[in-house]
Amino acid sequence: MEPKIDVVLSPNLLELYDLSGKIVVVIDVLRATSTMCAAMSNGVRHIKPVATVEEALKHQGGDWLVAGERNGEKVTGFDFGNSPAEYTKDVVDRKQLVLTTTNGTKCILASTQADEVLIGSFFNYSKLGEYLKSSAKDVILFCAGWKNRVNLEDSVFAGYLVDYLKESHTWESDAVELVHLAATTAMNDLEAFLYNASHAKRFRRLGNHEDLKRCCAIDAYPSLMRYENDLLVPFDN
Amino acid sequence: MEPKIDVVLSPNLLELYDLSGKIVVVIDVLRATSTMCAAMSNGVRHIKPVATVEEALKHQGGDWLVAGERNGEKVTGFDFGNSPAEYTKDVVDRKQLVLTTTNGTKCILASTQADEVLIGSFFNYSKLGEYLKSSAKDVILFCAGWKNRVNLEDSVFAGYLVDYLKESHTWESDAVELVHLAATTAMNDLEAFLYNASHAKRFRRLGNHEDLKRCCAIDAYPSLMRYENDLLVPFDN
Repeated sequence: MEPKIDVVLSPNLLELYDLSGKIVVVIDVLRATSTMCAAMSNGVRHIKPVATVEEALKHQGGDWLVAGERNGEKVTGFDFGNSPAEYTKDVVDRKQLVLTTTNGTKCILASTQADEVLIGSFFNYSKLGEYLKSSAKDVILFCAGWKNRVNLEDSVFAGYLVDYLKESHTWESDAVELVHLAATTAMNDLEAFLYNASHAKRFRRLGNHEDLKRCCAIDAYPSLMRYENDLLVPFDN
Repeated sequence: MEPKIDVVLSPNLLELYDLSGKIVVVIDVLRATSTMCAAMSNGVRHIKPVATVEEALKHQGGDWLVAGERNGEKVTGFDFGNSPAEYTKDVVDRKQLVLTTTNGTKCILASTQADEVLIGSFFNYSKLGEYLKSSAKDVILFCAGWKNRVNLEDSVFAGYLVDYLKESHTWESDAVELVHLAATTAMNDLEAFLYNASHAKRFRRLGNHEDLKRCCAIDAYPSLMRYENDLLVPFDN
């Protein structure tokens, strides 16, 4: 029997899904999971996602880098914000990273019932797609959204993964149909498509269009990582 | 300032929206809100949506018709199920109707904070669109979904309404972008598009493709109704 694929469009919908025995892919394209891929590709040993600013700050010192955002802005006292551009090799290589974000890190912590919790963004698209295809397990694509609302960039990336898995996986889910449809349209010009999203509009107000553009770079940071013992650790196919 | 439009893709997301001062349109195309439009057009005086089978059964007798479904099937002891085809003029004219369904009726009862609660389906599309346009109030399109999951037919009808209101209303909502995109594609061949939905697949299993086809008949039962004092009552533009 072919493995199944489904999509959770917002954390508010997670309770409707049984994660046990499945692979969950957490998706927060702008910007938590993109940042994670960039940091991992540039050499961090592992990433600890935490729910609160206080918990993140406890890790300050030694070779820990403390990073994250609240409402899209860098937190006072943190080493980094949540832009992938900050995580260059010269500053993150061989370091440990603790990260807290408005949406994405909470979704990782909420998915621990799953068999495997992975991280997805356009940055690791093909490598992740290939892993999911070869694993032949049921997959849940978990979109972080924005403050529990559905957002376009996470939905579209989920749709990209559906497209990657359309021959290997089956579905009976309307959410899958919706995101696949959005992705099929977005594939013509991903950046322009996302630029129209309300999140992108908010980005424009914050002067961060560069990050949107950056996060659309498919396969730019092809790292795989899974959540194990409170840490995101790298692994290979 | 132009009025705003937003979409609630599932009852699980309703808590994120402030309904006060707004018009809520409850959408449960397959089949609660389609049935309501058919019954109203065929002469029922009003419709009482109730949450439970027990409450519905209390109304049996007199000129009350007791109707509804659980899990898509007619309830034992009820006069009608939830297919619009059953609500012909000869049986419903001048009667009172009490209705309970798996998804749609609950959404009406959850929306009473709003300024107005209206009923939407392809059956009353243009008339409803015209009313929303002329009212110039903020609009929330509330998709009932299927057991709190997002479904395609309600999302697509929400997208049709967005399309109707795209000149009169504005939005900063990614859910609006998603449903509008789906509707734009569906408009080429609505029935075929919905036939691919998982709900339609379930319908095929239940042998109810006729109802899907029926519920795609745009403007077939152009009735407006709003929820007032526990009843859905007809009104005109």
